[in-house]
Amino acid sequence: MTDKPFTLSVKVVILDRKGRCLLIRRSMASEGNPGKWDFPGGKLDPGETFDGGLLREVAEETGLTIRLERVLGAAESEARTKRVVYLLMEASHVSGRVRLSEEHDDFCWTKAGELPSADMAEQFRDFAQSYAQSGQQST
Amino acid sequence: MTDKPFTLSVKVVILDRKGRCLLIRRSMASEGNPGKWDFPGGKLDPGETFDGGLLREVAEETGLTIRLERVLGAAESEARTKRVVYLLMEASHVSGRVRLSEEHDDFCWTKAGELPSADMAEQFRDFAQSYAQSGQQST
Repeated sequence: MTDKPFTLSVKVVILDRKGRCLLIRRSMASEGNPGKWDFPGGKLDPGETFDGGLLREVAEETGLTIRLERVLGAAESEARTKRVVYLLMEASHVSGRVRLSEEHDDFCWTKAGELPSADMAEQFRDFAQSYAQSGQQST
Repeated sequence: MTDKPFTLSVKVVILDRKGRCLLIRRSMASEGNPGKWDFPGGKLDPGETFDGGLLREVAEETGLTIRLERVLGAAESEARTKRVVYLLMEASHVSGRVRLSEEHDDFCWTKAGELPSADMAEQFRDFAQSYAQSGQQST
């Protein structure tokens, strides 16, 4: 019933060798969800390949080099002027130490099972719940 | 463990006024899944907006005008040279009658509950199962 345009944002759950995933905290100056935990990633630029755009976004936001592993799911949020569709990918940490950009002010490596209790950006709460459950089943 | 590039394909479950969804059958000349049922959609061109690219793909493949409604989920397939990530959207049929391109040779409008028994392209079988279940719960 809305004519707001949809945009696409691709987010990445980056796992370290211990199977913990990286959360980064949105700065208080963020337009949406200030101070909430988020996954790295974002909108791909026109003309970028899917992989190339994601690796660039993650490098800019975290300083990390990653390898994409698989798709995890999708989510959605509605803002004042647009609706954002999120595609969630899983990746493994290849190299680098976390170095944040100005868009984020903290980070932590969290067990999947603890994601539901993190103060996540609203649109990822359902995903966090189901990802935590699937992780607990497989370990 | 693979270095195959990932690409993104956006597929659309188009619902008519009776709540049935449109399936289109891949021609026997298709590179992947010939003769299998598929959803309209595909790869967005560089520089296209998310909505604009989807409406164009759907119009080219089906002749229909649609309105995007919400995100449904994600899926994945592996081909010889690449891995394809599928984002699945739900849309409603606004106007037009189905007119197929040369890529497809048949179509049908199917109740969500019947999707699991359709001879679908392999990568959508899990999605068809969960979509059928969620549709049955809500009606």
